[in-house]
Amino acid sequence: MSAVSVEALPSLPDVHPGDDLAQVLADACPPDLANGDVLVVAHKVVSKAEGRVRSLNSIEPGERARALAAEHGKDPRHVQAVLDEAAEVLRAGHGVLVCVTRHGLVCANAGVDRSNASEDGELVLLPEDPDGSARRLREGVAAARGRRPAVVIADSFGRPWRLGQTDVAIGVAGLTPLDQWIGRPDAYGRELRATSIAIADAVAAAADLVRAKDSLQPAVLVRGMERYVTPADGPGAAALRREPEQDLFR
Amino acid sequence: MSAVSVEALPSLPDVHPGDDLAQVLADACPPDLANGDVLVVAHKVVSKAEGRVRSLNSIEPGERARALAAEHGKDPRHVQAVLDEAAEVLRAGHGVLVCVTRHGLVCANAGVDRSNASEDGELVLLPEDPDGSARRLREGVAAARGRRPAVVIADSFGRPWRLGQTDVAIGVAGLTPLDQWIGRPDAYGRELRATSIAIADAVAAAADLVRAKDSLQPAVLVRGMERYVTPADGPGAAALRREPEQDLFR
Repeated sequence: MSAVSVEALPSLPDVHPGDDLAQVLADACPPDLANGDVLVVAHKVVSKAEGRVRSLNSIEPGERARALAAEHGKDPRHVQAVLDEAAEVLRAGHGVLVCVTRHGLVCANAGVDRSNASEDGELVLLPEDPDGSARRLREGVAAARGRRPAVVIADSFGRPWRLGQTDVAIGVAGLTPLDQWIGRPDAYGRELRATSIAIADAVAAAADLVRAKDSLQPAVLVRGMERYVTPADGPGAAALRREPEQDLFR
Repeated sequence: MSAVSVEALPSLPDVHPGDDLAQVLADACPPDLANGDVLVVAHKVVSKAEGRVRSLNSIEPGERARALAAEHGKDPRHVQAVLDEAAEVLRAGHGVLVCVTRHGLVCANAGVDRSNASEDGELVLLPEDPDGSARRLREGVAAARGRRPAVVIADSFGRPWRLGQTDVAIGVAGLTPLDQWIGRPDAYGRELRATSIAIADAVAAAADLVRAKDSLQPAVLVRGMERYVTPADGPGAAALRREPEQDLFR
């Protein structure tokens, strides 16, 4: 098995709605960018380029938002933005609304976040279609550079039972999201019963190790993943979503 | 921010109860092993060296194990071993018992697993005290090599809401398990509200990217993590456990 290396790309300029993020990323990638590389991009810069931001001042909270905000000590305008992104509120407590987003992701505050927004009072939402965003970025980087790395769009999610956040893949193009070992033999030749590895989430987590939360380094290059990088964009991060009826914690 | 590299150590010999795993690991580490490196070890080899294995044939299932096994299509002896390791069964379904272990970890089947056991009909349990195991391995490697890398003991855990497993840290010595950003400024100078990064889990996940489930390569060296490696062993993976009263999914 070959080694994997993880390196942050140089700081990017601040990105605004309508900016050509693929070109910005293509310019930041090293000269030896390769087809087998994986470009991991923090979702916030993707959301900003796509205009997926809202100003708190523009939001008129409704009754449910005001009630939840009062109960959980939150800004009612922020809660309204969360409800606008949420298909379902799974749990509320400890200052967090754990939601199912319209994409089927389960995360705190439906991914609506105030950290690292470009402006005070700005909320950053998740991309409308993160797998689509990943495919477009992959296409754009390939067009600009003549090399076609895989693209992963990452966000930091909390977890039940464990403290701290880890980055997970919310959008994927060109990387096998899930490596299925079920039915294949283990090191002793016996069938593995329950192993499939969330490759795209592990790549996202690895990328976060070289990124500081106070830096403008949203992009990380992960190399050595050639056996998981595919010419086709593949099923994307959608393949990582557990169906509700297969989930014991809904 | 410097780059991080992840490389599997060469295959280790099969490990048996009582073997000096620290010496085996020390011998497998490269000549340029450094104090700032992190040695990530799959728990199974640790458990085997510590004799944390049980033979299915030696287990007499009790009434509760027989009932759960019948209900969920499992081997009643395996279920008895799970119950022996569990402080609490949180959920049962889809062929899995999600348990709180006696250490306070939440995982499928209380970490009792048949894959990559050395013998047919053998179950591998989690180490009795994974943080203690990590500290002893760190000490042993340091004694053998005169270099003192951090040690992480990893296991593959499933997650609610997302398919696939990712490796997490169940034992840690000498690595900051949780990087607290709460209260520190973001890239725009505004206070971060809710960010702490589960560094040890991200390192475990990164290490799993270079390990095949059918190999005998349980040890991985992660380099470039110097700023998180500490001379003291620190709080260990225990610092990653969310207290039940702070958990919305118990």
